[in-house]
Amino acid sequence: MEEIEVHELKKVKLKKPVMIEGLPGVGNVGTLVAEHIIQELNAEKIFEMYSWHFPPQVLVNNDGTVRLCKNEMYAWKSKKQDLLILSGDQQSVTNEGHYFIAERILDIAQQYDVSRIYTLGGYGIGQLVERQKVLGAANDAALVEEMKKYGVEFREEEPGGSIVGASGLLLGLGRLRGIPAVCLLGLTSGYLVDPKSAQAVLKVLCQALNLEIDMQALEERAEEMERVVERLKEMEQAQIPRRREEELGYIR
Amino acid sequence: MEEIEVHELKKVKLKKPVMIEGLPGVGNVGTLVAEHIIQELNAEKIFEMYSWHFPPQVLVNNDGTVRLCKNEMYAWKSKKQDLLILSGDQQSVTNEGHYFIAERILDIAQQYDVSRIYTLGGYGIGQLVERQKVLGAANDAALVEEMKKYGVEFREEEPGGSIVGASGLLLGLGRLRGIPAVCLLGLTSGYLVDPKSAQAVLKVLCQALNLEIDMQALEERAEEMERVVERLKEMEQAQIPRRREEELGYIR
Amino acid sequence: MEEIEVHELKKVKLKKPVMIEGLPGVGNVGTLVAEHIIQELNAEKIFEMYSWHFPPQVLVNNDGTVRLCKNEMYAWKSKKQDLLILSGDQQSVTNEGHYFIAERILDIAQQYDVSRIYTLGGYGIGQLVERQKVLGAANDAALVEEMKKYGVEFREEEPGGSIVGASGLLLGLGRLRGIPAVCLLGLTSGYLVDPKSAQAVLKVLCQALNLEIDMQALEERAEEMERVVERLKEMEQAQIPRRREEELGYIR
Amino acid sequence: MEEIEVHELKKVKLKKPVMIEGLPGVGNVGTLVAEHIIQELNAEKIFEMYSWHFPPQVLVNNDGTVRLCKNEMYAWKSKKQDLLILSGDQQSVTNEGHYFIAERILDIAQQYDVSRIYTLGGYGIGQLVERQKVLGAANDAALVEEMKKYGVEFREEEPGGSIVGASGLLLGLGRLRGIPAVCLLGLTSGYLVDPKSAQAVLKVLCQALNLEIDMQALEERAEEMERVVERLKEMEQAQIPRRREEELGYIR
Repeated sequence: MEEIEVHELKKVKLKKPVMIEGLPGVGNVGTLVAEHIIQELNAEKIFEMYSWHFPPQVLVNNDGTVRLCKNEMYAWKSKKQDLLILSGDQQSVTNEGHYFIAERILDIAQQYDVSRIYTLGGYGIGQLVERQKVLGAANDAALVEEMKKYGVEFREEEPGGSIVGASGLLLGLGRLRGIPAVCLLGLTSGYLVDPKSAQAVLKVLCQALNLEIDMQALEERAEEMERVVERLKEMEQAQIPRRREEELGYIR
Repeated sequence: MEEIEVHELKKVKLKKPVMIEGLPGVGNVGTLVAEHIIQELNAEKIFEMYSWHFPPQVLVNNDGTVRLCKNEMYAWKSKKQDLLILSGDQQSVTNEGHYFIAERILDIAQQYDVSRIYTLGGYGIGQLVERQKVLGAANDAALVEEMKKYGVEFREEEPGGSIVGASGLLLGLGRLRGIPAVCLLGLTSGYLVDPKSAQAVLKVLCQALNLEIDMQALEERAEEMERVVERLKEMEQAQIPRRREEELGYIR
Repeated sequence: MEEIEVHELKKVKLKKPVMIEGLPGVGNVGTLVAEHIIQELNAEKIFEMYSWHFPPQVLVNNDGTVRLCKNEMYAWKSKKQDLLILSGDQQSVTNEGHYFIAERILDIAQQYDVSRIYTLGGYGIGQLVERQKVLGAANDAALVEEMKKYGVEFREEEPGGSIVGASGLLLGLGRLRGIPAVCLLGLTSGYLVDPKSAQAVLKVLCQALNLEIDMQALEERAEEMERVVERLKEMEQAQIPRRREEELGYIR
Repeated sequence: MEEIEVHELKKVKLKKPVMIEGLPGVGNVGTLVAEHIIQELNAEKIFEMYSWHFPPQVLVNNDGTVRLCKNEMYAWKSKKQDLLILSGDQQSVTNEGHYFIAERILDIAQQYDVSRIYTLGGYGIGQLVERQKVLGAANDAALVEEMKKYGVEFREEEPGGSIVGASGLLLGLGRLRGIPAVCLLGLTSGYLVDPKSAQAVLKVLCQALNLEIDMQALEERAEEMERVVERLKEMEQAQIPRRREEELGYIR
């Protein structure tokens, strides 16, 4: 096994595709978006990537079979805009692995003559999100301006902030190679898988790509999650009066 | 010293052996089974494997001598089914070491033309096990079906679960090489060395291999452990009335 | 990407320059001094250094663009004394990376025929600093004597103390190459960014280099920080009587 | 800088020397013994060893100068028995570094045709030691027997125990090279630097080597430490009656 091993499953020709990265991270936002796009567009898997920088474990599938931790690249061809979509089980667990894997992804991006990269993720704020927002960062000032048109927020008061892992490194290392790249981060609590935040990110992405993607499935997951959050809130509120009764009982 | 150093102690010819892996892990289940088989079958040590990915220490033997942390391979020849049995003191402590050592074990498996690999371990549930069960995973759907015949459970409601270390990687990396492999995990509390869980795993393994192995020694260790657990339970229950007395004494 | 990648932005000829290192560390003292010097002298960036030993992330600039974690070298030419000033976002996060990067910096030092290195940092004492002091260490006994003339303290009662990271290794590894090097550490609480400690270090440095650098900007930051500290102190004192009142209220 | 860099300071010819290792560890016992021997015998430094597996820092000497973390080898020639003594500031902080450095030390041992290695350390028991003892381990059964003659204890009831770092690996890796090696561990609390434990180890070592070494300096440090421990005990006991008074005061 090589340090990073790319298994090509299918050769495809793409016209200046846009690459979308949605690897695991805060609120699983990036992965939710990437997997939703893959399913809705019925994109085709063209690569599997293994690495000893991934955790030393296998994951158990529903049918009792296992798979090594891996990243996967999907391709989608259309008249308007070809896509490459990167998703996966894990990111590197070593420091240098993050750099090596991002470099390898950029090699693939250049090989396919990618015109732009969108990296997707969540931005954890430590509390429930009142109003959905998508924060952005880009490796080029012109891209910042372009993204503002789609409602992406760029917060001047948050310099020094950092974007960790593939979503950040593809921008930083991509810049050294002259590949334009944008990072879209959906606001999220950071405590739960957040399909609602994923919806907000997907909307911006669809606008930017001038693509239409059915959001039904993601919406259903978001509603389901909403119900979970509501129940959690109710349970929390229900505990307050109960505690007061306990206190009263104690005094009586 | 090489990164992984294999010291061959004896050359043996084996006919399409089955490889059994029982390296240290949860409840020490895998090691208990592997060492029991080695002793009962009087298998012969053919390899020692050292690596700088093992902890940087020596272990002290009963007689005051020391040994480097190592993995060991034993061979057993019979008319029905030849075996290779892997046991050892430790697994890798580095991330990449897990991958490298699993790959090296698979090299050896291929060198001996291994027909199948069984990896053994425990599945910690965080509480005492009421009814012994053996959970499974495999790197091939047909193997899943075969294992169900021996009472191995495959839990559909537990996808996303992971199997860490050699027991997992031999399946995942083995699949890339086309070597059929099954993982058998005995349910265990995860807090104690668990010879009873090991017995359950061994029973499944003997059935699958159509082998007869005397379980007396393992049964004795299981009974001994049972007594330890009983005593722990009694001590716990004994504390409850005593605490109540203390409370009463406090009120009086 | 190489393990350490140096991007030369500009070729400059310098006459036996002095190198000043101010990478992130305790109280951010070193970075504050280095960045102040760069701005006041309007020094010119000549190198950027990237490495996979830096954290796997990008930092977001005020304008929404991002940058990879990097170290930067600036040059300043003058009739009296040429300077090389090293600053940056981060230090290595791996053990060996610290050594490799320090070695690479020394390669550059030798390439420019550096006459001496000053490494700057903070020395955290775990409480507010009553009287500003600058502690020192050097890789040559004669340098220790020279530094005492500028009021640098060398504490005999603190042997066994260690200087971690670039500020230490440039001295230790520099000695093996015969490059004279001094470390200046401003006393600091260790809890806050400390421009006052940076001022004290800068004063010593200016004396040693026989340079005049306007301190206004650093003084303003120090005063601003003083006000923050004063407010923190007031808040703390305000809580003590309030707590007493609470206690009295409880007794009444 | 190489991964492990050995700087030879002096060439010496030795006759089948015995190597003594006393690198930092529990209670600093090994280092205390090694440094005592070096000083008492006025042994000569012949090697310095640097490595990027040591911590990335320099240590500050009493005179304000600094030194890189290093290991040092000293030589002593005599009519009876030549010695090589290894001491140092630190051990490796990486897993593989422990193996690499031990291998390198063994290379040097073979280069000097070392007849035996003694590795020294402490065995922490988590409480004050009532009666000084020296526990042993060896990489050869005959050595175990020999050591028993000098009062070294080999505890059968403590198998599975491990010896971490150079003191262990020199035995384990030394065995693979056929170099006889013994580890002597002085019982120690594990909380304090323990010159008394060092004395016990040194006595055994002197007997085994048939050497006479003045113990005055070590005895003085042991007495000094005894006084520290006595004071700690007094302080602890003084607190008990005081606490009782407080309780009485509370009841009155």
